[in-house]
Amino acid sequence: MTNKITELFKIEHPIIQGGMVWVSGAKLAAAVSNAGGLGLIGAGSMKPDLLRQHILKAQSLTTKPFGVNVPLLYDKAQEQIDCALELGVKIFFTSAGSPKKFTQYLKDKNAIVAHVTSSPELALKCSDAGVDAIVAEGFEAGGHNGREEITTLTLIPQVKKVTKVPLIAAGGIASGASILAAMALGADGVQLGTRFLMTTESSAHDNFKKLLLTSLPHSTQIMMRKTVPVRLFANTFASEIKSIEEQFTGSELTEKLNTHLGKYRAKMGMLDGDLEAGELEVGQIISSIKDIPSVESVMKELLSDYQKTLSQLPHTI
Amino acid sequence: MTNKITELFKIEHPIIQGGMVWVSGAKLAAAVSNAGGLGLIGAGSMKPDLLRQHILKAQSLTTKPFGVNVPLLYDKAQEQIDCALELGVKIFFTSAGSPKKFTQYLKDKNAIVAHVTSSPELALKCSDAGVDAIVAEGFEAGGHNGREEITTLTLIPQVKKVTKVPLIAAGGIASGASILAAMALGADGVQLGTRFLMTTESSAHDNFKKLLLTSLPHSTQIMMRKTVPVRLFANTFASEIKSIEEQFTGSELTEKLNTHLGKYRAKMGMLDGDLEAGELEVGQIISSIKDIPSVESVMKELLSDYQKTLSQLPHTI
Repeated sequence: MTNKITELFKIEHPIIQGGMVWVSGAKLAAAVSNAGGLGLIGAGSMKPDLLRQHILKAQSLTTKPFGVNVPLLYDKAQEQIDCALELGVKIFFTSAGSPKKFTQYLKDKNAIVAHVTSSPELALKCSDAGVDAIVAEGFEAGGHNGREEITTLTLIPQVKKVTKVPLIAAGGIASGASILAAMALGADGVQLGTRFLMTTESSAHDNFKKLLLTSLPHSTQIMMRKTVPVRLFANTFASEIKSIEEQFTGSELTEKLNTHLGKYRAKMGMLDGDLEAGELEVGQIISSIKDIPSVESVMKELLSDYQKTLSQLPHTI
Repeated sequence: MTNKITELFKIEHPIIQGGMVWVSGAKLAAAVSNAGGLGLIGAGSMKPDLLRQHILKAQSLTTKPFGVNVPLLYDKAQEQIDCALELGVKIFFTSAGSPKKFTQYLKDKNAIVAHVTSSPELALKCSDAGVDAIVAEGFEAGGHNGREEITTLTLIPQVKKVTKVPLIAAGGIASGASILAAMALGADGVQLGTRFLMTTESSAHDNFKKLLLTSLPHSTQIMMRKTVPVRLFANTFASEIKSIEEQFTGSELTEKLNTHLGKYRAKMGMLDGDLEAGELEVGQIISSIKDIPSVESVMKELLSDYQKTLSQLPHTI
């Protein structure tokens, strides 16, 4: 197929693998790109030197286009972007910051820019900033999450209404049926994080992947609503956060949360596999994922499930 | 079309109008049934005598099937059910309580029973209780809401996986495109509340409907998470609740919330049109609704939007 998204990124299928801290390195990104989607190296957990290594490795693993996801809240965002540009990366997904910050800078270097949003208002700002694509990510998504708590089902049609910029739906998508749902709602493409976390090529720790196989539909919850909202898997660390949130209010709550969070909790959990003390970020759809296949196998399944689902829909209701 | 849902309820289109307190009386329910969907009288805000009047009125307004939605947490649930049975009502949607409570009782009287759930676990309990259909309602939905915060996009496929009982998706659905999305995810039918609230036939106060035309995507929020989670429109009453939630924790929070909520807040807001002191329950999708047409016009639009959306989807991705 060809549509706005496949043409923009020069890929076969409008399926993008979301950038995930500690989870989406060169191996995962290259595998997704090799399978006809768009792989993204998640720079959010990498110092510029490590990012350089991952980009070089991805270039050795695939000749297909891949990109880098750069969360703009990190103080090294500029360095990361320059490092990627220098190595010839032409696709950037920016997030967690203003789309105005780097879009023009990147466009001036002939890069393609997509920005991640959680509301139609921010989507309009992305459009005004001149981005090439918008990722609209709903409340279901893992990791950092919008304060508006707009779900993918309500978000996508409303973003579609405010801008003609190519639209990528994210949050809660892990099957061909949900890709079909997202496209019915107006998306031109989809971004999947959690589904690609659960592949052999992701760098999530094996213990983490195995734990996730036991997920229940309510195993993730949005936490730290008063500081930085994030969707976490329910483990000891999350229980501790919950307990703090139940006991304190106001500035005392913020202080206690920040102290408890500390540093490297996400690395500890997701990369190093400390399933109790670590912070485990994952999307709500995890409970419907019961295997850890290869990326290629996931892609094949998504494509065939899309077709099968479409063929079974009634023509009228 | 015919499918499990149209055959079960003997209706033309698998579109159900959700029972809404103070909003869905005889006029709305009959209009939806006359338009080929299934109208539901929302008994949650009615004493048995008033319910009787609404059922009799609906019977005078339509010869098509309609039903009654009974929230089981009300102490008059048994009386309401008996009143409806006595008047010949054969379709019951029960909610806010155990599906075991009345399902067998109703089945013994040859009634059709659907129960509203917010999680796959509860859906399984519904199935075990012998219900004829399950309404799986996501986090997007207005009014009372599940503690699990599972969105429609992630909820529907997971309910589908645990039971073969005919499945009705609810929460965030207000267009033909979103009906298509829900059916792609595995639903056999859909239940729309907010879209039918915004019709000439609903009994929501005109001031309330007009206020809702100004909704933004973040105009509703889940509140009272610690007591009875409910999705409310942001007005003065909601701000007061928010302020209490920011100041107190534990049993003090519960007490303050209960005191502030008091009684009849929902009637005050939704039926009497006091937009500041009243409690305004509405779904997140409200911000995409910018008109107050007739039920017939809504139904036509839903059906044609479904067809148009389906025809525009790519056959493969």
